[in-house]
Amino acid sequence: MKPTPEPRADARKEAVPDALRELVGQPVQAIDTPALVVDLDAMQRNLARMADFAKKHNIRWRPHAKMHKSAAIARLQMQAGAIGVCVQKTAEAEAMVAGGVTDVYISNEVIAPHKLARVAALAHQLAAVRGRLAIAVDSEEGVTRLAQAMNDARTRHGQAAVIDVFVEIDVGQRRCGVPPGGAAVPLALEIRKHAALRFAGLQAYHGRAQHLRTAQERRDAIGIAVDDVVFTRKLIEAQGVPVDLVTGAGTGSLVLEAASGVYGELQAGSFMFMDADYAQNERDPAQPNFEHALFVKTQVISTCATHAVCDAGHKSHAIDSGLPRVHAFDESSALDYFNGGDEHGILRTAASGQRLPALGRYLWLIPGHCDPTVNLHNFMIGVSGGLRSGKVEKIIRVDARGALT
Amino acid sequence: MKPTPEPRADARKEAVPDALRELVGQPVQAIDTPALVVDLDAMQRNLARMADFAKKHNIRWRPHAKMHKSAAIARLQMQAGAIGVCVQKTAEAEAMVAGGVTDVYISNEVIAPHKLARVAALAHQLAAVRGRLAIAVDSEEGVTRLAQAMNDARTRHGQAAVIDVFVEIDVGQRRCGVPPGGAAVPLALEIRKHAALRFAGLQAYHGRAQHLRTAQERRDAIGIAVDDVVFTRKLIEAQGVPVDLVTGAGTGSLVLEAASGVYGELQAGSFMFMDADYAQNERDPAQPNFEHALFVKTQVISTCATHAVCDAGHKSHAIDSGLPRVHAFDESSALDYFNGGDEHGILRTAASGQRLPALGRYLWLIPGHCDPTVNLHNFMIGVSGGLRSGKVEKIIRVDARGALT
Repeated sequence: MKPTPEPRADARKEAVPDALRELVGQPVQAIDTPALVVDLDAMQRNLARMADFAKKHNIRWRPHAKMHKSAAIARLQMQAGAIGVCVQKTAEAEAMVAGGVTDVYISNEVIAPHKLARVAALAHQLAAVRGRLAIAVDSEEGVTRLAQAMNDARTRHGQAAVIDVFVEIDVGQRRCGVPPGGAAVPLALEIRKHAALRFAGLQAYHGRAQHLRTAQERRDAIGIAVDDVVFTRKLIEAQGVPVDLVTGAGTGSLVLEAASGVYGELQAGSFMFMDADYAQNERDPAQPNFEHALFVKTQVISTCATHAVCDAGHKSHAIDSGLPRVHAFDESSALDYFNGGDEHGILRTAASGQRLPALGRYLWLIPGHCDPTVNLHNFMIGVSGGLRSGKVEKIIRVDARGALT
Repeated sequence: MKPTPEPRADARKEAVPDALRELVGQPVQAIDTPALVVDLDAMQRNLARMADFAKKHNIRWRPHAKMHKSAAIARLQMQAGAIGVCVQKTAEAEAMVAGGVTDVYISNEVIAPHKLARVAALAHQLAAVRGRLAIAVDSEEGVTRLAQAMNDARTRHGQAAVIDVFVEIDVGQRRCGVPPGGAAVPLALEIRKHAALRFAGLQAYHGRAQHLRTAQERRDAIGIAVDDVVFTRKLIEAQGVPVDLVTGAGTGSLVLEAASGVYGELQAGSFMFMDADYAQNERDPAQPNFEHALFVKTQVISTCATHAVCDAGHKSHAIDSGLPRVHAFDESSALDYFNGGDEHGILRTAASGQRLPALGRYLWLIPGHCDPTVNLHNFMIGVSGGLRSGKVEKIIRVDARGALT
């Protein structure tokens, strides 16, 4: 399913401020700080690497849009071969659909009836353009409420639509999902009782495995997840119910799910931008060599004998997975970033004999975690030609910024 | 200076979405999750406590708007007696002025010439309505560049304006500011060379002291800060330069600065909302009894034998100062919140024999740190009559959300 409709005008969308619009075509030096900057060349290379990888392994990919939250980037991913996108929130799904994305999977549980009404409305809206909506469940109540919402929507919309429903099993994340094995069977059977729901398979995402540092630890964790999936699938299929698809995987472990022969769809999202946390992983030899493509441009606003202070703190970048790294264009300028609070970063030299940056100097930070960093910004500034001598190519709206509900 | 002009229409401001507008007048039960909710009654009590405190100590207060980022709340504070507001960023100052606030202090360094041009434009805009802009400096280059920007703006605006300039000294924060003592003198003298700049006094904010847990540790830290200020002031005054005002203090230590006889203005901002981090401080007996007024409403979307999962993760609340606390209406329902990632929270019972919350249940979280939590949300939902049986009174726009530059 290719994304065909152009994004419809949405009055709620924030207009691009003049100062940002006027930046297009300007050299990177003109970018005010702090700002979230995407190296578009690196991003495109990452996209091509992912597309190649998926093709080589003959596996579907559905990147997680909770990371970039941009319908324009989602459409770019689908043009490169992605089947659609994942999201975590109903409001993110709405933002993607409003931006012309027609195949969306809410890889999370939705329980509130008024929110399920929005899910059902979206399913009908997408069905009308031959698109598709999917969702995860992990409780009978979740299934029953979803079916109710779909029935109510059918009455309102005057047409039938079907939503794909995945049963989530907990393969090690210790968050949502039923335990692997027998608990998934009654849910699959319950889904099949409702005409508006289609049992689409298993959601088996192991988020923690992404951040295990050694390749061996990740192999062990995903090995267990694969066993869990195989065991659960067997029990469901023993009831005569086919399990069409197993979906999961993030950037840190995708080579393992892809090689498993069990997963049919990869949800990895971070590969597009990467971050300082993923950079700490020992790389699996099979892993495509994804590059950093997301940066915070910052300026030194204060200096003293011991440190320099830059204008990017944790209102500019998320620190849940660690502080940002200072991007070093050359080794002689290695700096360490220390937490300076909401609006400041403290910079110290990484080795003796090095110099602190001068007042007014611009630096580039590699955020610790891309997803919540993007969510702090209304817009990303897309640069082509590199961070040193490139120019601003486009302004990318973070359509689903703050889309929490 | 009272805020007189009504906020001017600003095309860039995000409109209140229909779903939020329709919420006004509804019971709290109707609030979708996750959502940032302000208990307006508690907030008003906090405001009255602060106004009383400042009156009793005969001290000016200029709450930090980096916390609430709302022009409406800033105007409320000024109606209650605040002299104006502080901000950290030029873009925050612009958002406050656009929202009708006429006395703004950028308590931070600005170095980029194009940003100083915006500062100077704002100073001229405020001068035209008899308002006032102030800024901090900690370098000669900062003073010279600011003076240049003010001169350029005067040429453009065809009228003279003066900006108040505070010299920032580092009294223990180890961030911006010159060391206490002699280094501040040449800066004060340099400021006085420029007709468009007025040397307004010293910026002496000790952010770290706010979060020292015992009252004695905070007394020790602010004692040193006060000594630093007195020493520095004496050196400047020895040059025949009066130091009109010393400004600083946050919610954790304001009783100490107020009692010092040295500080003339309090910058505390968090007292309006409070947070889980401040709640961990041993309370100084002199401290007004500020209440929690900021909450994240969340819903349980998944349950299992060991834990429940709610729909608020660190895209809903900042975790730089620790995880949120679950607000317990009664002791029998004490729950602990564990990190579940960007979009989820993990809830476990705080003691054995207690029950996990049921699927679909709504809970209230007290964020770890109010400032960056507010910055995640476009709107706050103002509730009166309490969180149990109150109703939605108004929607408060976070005007300066993401105002980083």
